[in-house]
Amino acid sequence: MNGAEALLRSLVGAGIDTCFSNPGTSEMHFVSALDRVAGMRAVPALAEGVATGAADGYGRMTRRPAATLLHCGPGLANGLANLHNARRARSPIVNLIGDLSHGHRPADPPLAMDIEALARTVSSWTRTVLDVHAVARDGVAAVAASLTAGRGIASLVLPSDVCWSDGVQFAMPGKAAATTLVDAATVEKARSALSGPASALLLGGDALTGDALLLAGAIARRTGALLLTESSIARIERGQGRPVVQRIPYAPSAAVSFMAGIRRLVLAGAKRPVFSFSGPDGRSHPEAEGIDVSTLVHAEEDVADALERLARALDCAPWTAEEEGTDAAQPACGPINPDALAQSLAVLMPRECIVVDESVSFGRNMFLMTQRAAAHDWLQLTGGAIGMGMPLATGAAVACPGRRVVNLEADGSALYTLQALWTQAREQLSVTTIIISNRRYAILFDEMKRVGAKTSTVSEDLLTLDRPDIDWVKLASGFGVEAERATSMEAFNAAFQRAIEAHGPRLIELVV
Amino acid sequence: MNGAEALLRSLVGAGIDTCFSNPGTSEMHFVSALDRVAGMRAVPALAEGVATGAADGYGRMTRRPAATLLHCGPGLANGLANLHNARRARSPIVNLIGDLSHGHRPADPPLAMDIEALARTVSSWTRTVLDVHAVARDGVAAVAASLTAGRGIASLVLPSDVCWSDGVQFAMPGKAAATTLVDAATVEKARSALSGPASALLLGGDALTGDALLLAGAIARRTGALLLTESSIARIERGQGRPVVQRIPYAPSAAVSFMAGIRRLVLAGAKRPVFSFSGPDGRSHPEAEGIDVSTLVHAEEDVADALERLARALDCAPWTAEEEGTDAAQPACGPINPDALAQSLAVLMPRECIVVDESVSFGRNMFLMTQRAAAHDWLQLTGGAIGMGMPLATGAAVACPGRRVVNLEADGSALYTLQALWTQAREQLSVTTIIISNRRYAILFDEMKRVGAKTSTVSEDLLTLDRPDIDWVKLASGFGVEAERATSMEAFNAAFQRAIEAHGPRLIELVV
Repeated sequence: MNGAEALLRSLVGAGIDTCFSNPGTSEMHFVSALDRVAGMRAVPALAEGVATGAADGYGRMTRRPAATLLHCGPGLANGLANLHNARRARSPIVNLIGDLSHGHRPADPPLAMDIEALARTVSSWTRTVLDVHAVARDGVAAVAASLTAGRGIASLVLPSDVCWSDGVQFAMPGKAAATTLVDAATVEKARSALSGPASALLLGGDALTGDALLLAGAIARRTGALLLTESSIARIERGQGRPVVQRIPYAPSAAVSFMAGIRRLVLAGAKRPVFSFSGPDGRSHPEAEGIDVSTLVHAEEDVADALERLARALDCAPWTAEEEGTDAAQPACGPINPDALAQSLAVLMPRECIVVDESVSFGRNMFLMTQRAAAHDWLQLTGGAIGMGMPLATGAAVACPGRRVVNLEADGSALYTLQALWTQAREQLSVTTIIISNRRYAILFDEMKRVGAKTSTVSEDLLTLDRPDIDWVKLASGFGVEAERATSMEAFNAAFQRAIEAHGPRLIELVV
Repeated sequence: MNGAEALLRSLVGAGIDTCFSNPGTSEMHFVSALDRVAGMRAVPALAEGVATGAADGYGRMTRRPAATLLHCGPGLANGLANLHNARRARSPIVNLIGDLSHGHRPADPPLAMDIEALARTVSSWTRTVLDVHAVARDGVAAVAASLTAGRGIASLVLPSDVCWSDGVQFAMPGKAAATTLVDAATVEKARSALSGPASALLLGGDALTGDALLLAGAIARRTGALLLTESSIARIERGQGRPVVQRIPYAPSAAVSFMAGIRRLVLAGAKRPVFSFSGPDGRSHPEAEGIDVSTLVHAEEDVADALERLARALDCAPWTAEEEGTDAAQPACGPINPDALAQSLAVLMPRECIVVDESVSFGRNMFLMTQRAAAHDWLQLTGGAIGMGMPLATGAAVACPGRRVVNLEADGSALYTLQALWTQAREQLSVTTIIISNRRYAILFDEMKRVGAKTSTVSEDLLTLDRPDIDWVKLASGFGVEAERATSMEAFNAAFQRAIEAHGPRLIELVV
């Protein structure tokens, strides 16, 4: 068998079952091998940002890597922004990046680019396959690397000669390196901090799902500590039956107020909170100065184990959900505004749905107002690179075929990677996209005010999307996704209910 | 004045009049300065690949840099593929890349990324502004760098504190470094080679336009040498009244046959020809082995001067156009095929139009068959990173408001950066886009055959765009561009004539 087939068989053997693909010339042998090797679902994307964002969504939901198939340096470059988000979300991903053959590269053909330099900006592991005898082994090493140290991105560069050359075998699955356990003194320090007044446990990564989240809930109930998350959440399980975790607000001033009363902050899988942007005051962090900040467990360590030992040290009772009502009984009526949309969603969101939230400024309170909705997962923008929402929703839907995905999308963000709609149509994915069509980069108007810059004719023109208006019903329909427009909450409620009962994707343009 | 305003005034003073913009939070002070400083046209783009590709088109047509305005590492990453094409085309561009403030960066906020590492993959000059006192000077240095050594990409990283800080002056324009002249011995060597039989002059860069091209025409007429171009052409002036320059075919086998009779190859502003891809035979170059290849002048030297001195050494008569007929008198009728489309274009293309050719496999003979059309410019994909066509057309139209742009676009390529249509609508640019809608990555089917790989169910599914069909009339219309569909040459001819007489952009979906 040739190198491409040996690689593919080895990846399948190592547990990779999905490849988000935008191949070009140098990847043809790998594409051809897909015809001969069972067990890999190839999902086509019209642009690389869709492929990498989908791999992020898949990785967040399964905690296993999907592969991406990208064409040389430019293909990787097009996918980098969503890989940056994925890196911040600690999603495991294995990038397969085709390249010119080893022999042809010195001639500096048009596509030649420094692929490793690009890859290293987002990857925890980068390697170019040296020859055909290394390709299968390098493939399984990439899978293992993506699952090591709290998960990350492994990028494997495949010169085309290693794919077309014959005579190699596939390789046995590699093993991820063991996860570090925290020591007893660290657990004791956290126990002591959380036992004091005005304490909070800041959760990130694996602490926001599964047993770890329930342990955190038990710890909070026992100690009276607040449960917090970072402003940007890769994935959290929430809604009825789950512990309430409060999110540190995005805006610096709101974050500072929110954190003002906290005197002891313990980090579990989270970084010290940091503003997305800092102003001339030079402040980067929201917590009050001089408070006690300590780390129970880093994201790359065993988060669940640390929380379990902390819960034991505190002699916590197991988490049980309290009886609780929903926040609202009825969907909202009347004109569309952020609170009305949140109210309708809180009532109408189907149980076990996955919310992909790139609603930016319009959606700022959406998270808060859906806390008591039916149990669901909530996924957010982690790296600040907008254009992740539609691809992430696509990948989450591929990962979880039995669940509905609800994608809250600001129009400005959606326009970076709208090509994802076609993949949703092709794969008949159960994604309901809600485009919040305010026809402007609303967050930038806020930001202009925040930094004290004035807007006038030129700058306002540059931050608006209304000349001409963008017609999302036509765009979605051009990609094969059924779509409708809503200009009142009544219309939205009806459209949303139709959408979540439909087979395949739907889009609702919410004109606000 | 603050750093943003000082920078903007300095850029305008150094001759930058256009900024293709996709700003975010950290660029707000620069956006605000656009309200106070006259002389900079800000052209908005919905995605960064549109902004960078447009800057490439602008640079190819004017030989002056436009600026781009990009948001942090992810914004630059999204624009890199078209910057890669621009680098290969030697387009001058000044990238302005916002970043987190110097003080905030150590906190590793979500958007932090290694911007310089990304920039260096495509730039001949990269710098991060150290403080507000350097920003204006760095701006004019970037402009000068973009015009130095045959032009290139200069990337300036702008931490937001250097934009918001006050109290600086603007800087006087910098000077590009002087261009190197070739020595007399080199000219004599080229004279001698071209005077022998079976010789060819391979033109690239500045040798393909203006006086340099006419000098090359005179040299060819005098010596009998063939005039050639590389397979990928940044820009050539051609059509009636101009010297005929033959393009080395893209496909390796055709390129080898084409070059078989040539014994002496002289390079003028061009690199030694190289295949885009090489197969298992290990061959990278099309010319016969052992032939005499020499360089008259490199692209970063003074190409026109070298050709002028060569023409003088050969005692050439000035170039004059011969009387010549057109290839076809009538547009083609009947079913749509590559030759029919080329025939219609050869007849209907308006004088002085700019053709942006990303027609990939369907358009392979289009160049050959339009040689005798009305005088025009022809621009191609130079770096192999598809998705450049619509952005390039946008930038060329901004650069040359009096001329029509005809964009030949393969559907697969168009889908990477279709957001350019909205900028065309917003700016009312005279671009006629012809989408060659074959609903597949046709070049990849060819390539599968060439490399000996077979296609079957899975691979064919991955290389087609017909499940569901993509509706370009709806997509264009969603972005505010009038569009129609043509399924016969008669319908195309009529639609094309309407389009080139219209004000603003039009799109024709040619179903093939």
